[in-house]
Amino acid sequence: MSSAGDRVRIKHAGFEYSGILLESKDDNIFVLKLSNGYNVGIPKGNSKVTVTGNLQVEKLPELKAEKNLKLPNVSLVSTGGTITSRVDYRTGAVHPITKPAELLSQIPELKKIANISVTPAMSKFSEEFSPDDWSKLAGFVGRELNKENVRGVIVTHGTDTLHYTAAALSFALEGLGKPVAIVGGQRSSDRGSFDGAMNLICGTHYANSDIAEVATVLHGTSSDDYCIANPGTKTKKMHTTMRNTFRPINSMPYAKLFKTGKIEKLRGSNLRHAGEVNVQSQFEEKVALIKYHPGLSPKILDFYVKEGYRGVIIEGTGLGHVSANTWLKSITAATKKMFVGMTSQANYGKVDPYVYSTGRDLFNHGVVYLGDMLAETAIVKLSWVLGQEKDKDKVRDLMTTNLRGELSEKSVPNGFLY
Amino acid sequence: MSSAGDRVRIKHAGFEYSGILLESKDDNIFVLKLSNGYNVGIPKGNSKVTVTGNLQVEKLPELKAEKNLKLPNVSLVSTGGTITSRVDYRTGAVHPITKPAELLSQIPELKKIANISVTPAMSKFSEEFSPDDWSKLAGFVGRELNKENVRGVIVTHGTDTLHYTAAALSFALEGLGKPVAIVGGQRSSDRGSFDGAMNLICGTHYANSDIAEVATVLHGTSSDDYCIANPGTKTKKMHTTMRNTFRPINSMPYAKLFKTGKIEKLRGSNLRHAGEVNVQSQFEEKVALIKYHPGLSPKILDFYVKEGYRGVIIEGTGLGHVSANTWLKSITAATKKMFVGMTSQANYGKVDPYVYSTGRDLFNHGVVYLGDMLAETAIVKLSWVLGQEKDKDKVRDLMTTNLRGELSEKSVPNGFLY
Repeated sequence: MSSAGDRVRIKHAGFEYSGILLESKDDNIFVLKLSNGYNVGIPKGNSKVTVTGNLQVEKLPELKAEKNLKLPNVSLVSTGGTITSRVDYRTGAVHPITKPAELLSQIPELKKIANISVTPAMSKFSEEFSPDDWSKLAGFVGRELNKENVRGVIVTHGTDTLHYTAAALSFALEGLGKPVAIVGGQRSSDRGSFDGAMNLICGTHYANSDIAEVATVLHGTSSDDYCIANPGTKTKKMHTTMRNTFRPINSMPYAKLFKTGKIEKLRGSNLRHAGEVNVQSQFEEKVALIKYHPGLSPKILDFYVKEGYRGVIIEGTGLGHVSANTWLKSITAATKKMFVGMTSQANYGKVDPYVYSTGRDLFNHGVVYLGDMLAETAIVKLSWVLGQEKDKDKVRDLMTTNLRGELSEKSVPNGFLY
Repeated sequence: MSSAGDRVRIKHAGFEYSGILLESKDDNIFVLKLSNGYNVGIPKGNSKVTVTGNLQVEKLPELKAEKNLKLPNVSLVSTGGTITSRVDYRTGAVHPITKPAELLSQIPELKKIANISVTPAMSKFSEEFSPDDWSKLAGFVGRELNKENVRGVIVTHGTDTLHYTAAALSFALEGLGKPVAIVGGQRSSDRGSFDGAMNLICGTHYANSDIAEVATVLHGTSSDDYCIANPGTKTKKMHTTMRNTFRPINSMPYAKLFKTGKIEKLRGSNLRHAGEVNVQSQFEEKVALIKYHPGLSPKILDFYVKEGYRGVIIEGTGLGHVSANTWLKSITAATKKMFVGMTSQANYGKVDPYVYSTGRDLFNHGVVYLGDMLAETAIVKLSWVLGQEKDKDKVRDLMTTNLRGELSEKSVPNGFLY
């Protein structure tokens, strides 16, 4: 007899299916989670089932902490997410594994690269992250970075908001002198296409490199060719399911990272240097992003003013526009009360208030144009800047000054659709 | 003596600059608009200025309406935007040209391809477009399409919201049997890098093709190699300044279009057929898009409920998530009152409520997952569906049914970062 949680092979109507049996609401149907992650229903009649294992009894081996003194020490701070998850065999949904350290024992290559110590900071899917979590995480990462014998830090993180956290850590870690790799996975660890193993290997090489920047480290292509390390303030999740989802936007990656340890640099960066990192982790919660579209009422802006918000980022069209005809009155009122920044929903390229009359009107009424800063980075930066600073002019200065690579001083030629 | 509006060559400190003189606030500085669109300031001292022309006197020749009976008849409906604009020599900003027909006389190739008649529907930058404009434009386009001797229609349009209008026309034109090309330009017509000429040539070939779909027709690469015709419901402006800004998302383009008239098809489409188009152009204004980010308060959703909105589209993270911990209460209240649809801010790929517990929670509380529909297309479709239909179940059915290619029934292998 087979039951939910079993690994099975099912033969039916000339086809063979392999996967994990899920609970089925229909007594006549097997529901099987295939190794590619999709669920299929197979009629029980005329099916031949072979049980090959069971998820519950397939316990991961214990991590043995044999320290190799010749290898660098790397700290891994875990936060949850798919990379440290397994499938729940009852529901077919994905749930966190309880001991992230167990994951490492599945990847024997890691032992040859570094001594990795694991600090579980939290265990949540990244769509549940809040600015408070950024603060908490920055504290954990800062403590590890400031240990003298630690070469670099890896953060494991859900991919949904990994790029927001990458930006948050970029701003919160002042004077960073060591690498910080933020690593995620698009497939859970019990799937054949698990990408977290390679991403962790690449992340470990990154943490041991001389690139002293916060970077996302995940697959560079849809195959297992190499990872790319993207600047934490210049990257976005660009595909809901593909493993090479994190792309650099308005930038090249810092480097390609190969499993062998080879690092191919693609742009300049800050380099490893001595000195403690200074954790500045206050984030203001009363900020919001507004994505404009034709017909969007400016009442949304009035609402945030009324609610006492300290700033908004508009994701405008093209070079940074909203309808001036309908929005200028609300814009004028809002900029007297709070910071109003402009970015573009076009993803790539920079905003510019000088080309069209609409941009000039908005700019002349106090909207601050934020160059090639990504909207996602801009909302994180605004939250961080307002966490540190109350003076309106200083806030504007900080928002329009490049602090962590978020604002390109020159245009980057090769970033488009990389 | 030189003055604003003059075309000049300025020699200064060993360099020579060519461009259009703008008004300068500083008596000691020339402000010059270079042919690449950028403005430079050049000190007047030690500068040698040669006037080579003046924008005001460079009038465009009249369009001569010699009809060639052997050529197809194509209707051009103009709406404004950069493609029908010139630089204002006083401010350096870009302003619409008053007679869009004049533009055609600049592109002699067009006369050899088709007899083009011009209907000026409106003259506004596309960031000023509202759902009312979509209705108005659909009426103009429908009238042209239903003229028996018209092979197809070209719409010239600003690029900021060109893709929203492309989606709006896709839905509004029921039973479309002829091609509709929406053509824009990223450079105004007086610039060396003007892209509108090639886009209009490609758009004319498209309008004469057998592809009976609304498509955006603009540069396919950053060079003048070819144009791509992207499905009106599956395209976005992806770069603020580059000429190949319109990319297909979750789809291949219908075709590559070459200036020679060669058409290289890349995917299937509806084909030209007889029958009148039925214009369904009511759009509901009380809809809004909400782009989620960590820390965004669910009060925004409460606000739209309170304002009596009929629907919202959420641009969630990853597979279609918001923080269930903080949003579920507001979601539950909202879905009782209005349509709440889920799309992804990852741009590419589809949403899926079944993979993670967060998605299941949102789905179980009434959020409607919209597959691989783009957020921009989803807000336009919702506005259109609510314009036609009041019944809640029918609205949900229409939103989750593929009407105009907006919802892929199978996953598209080649669309990512095309």
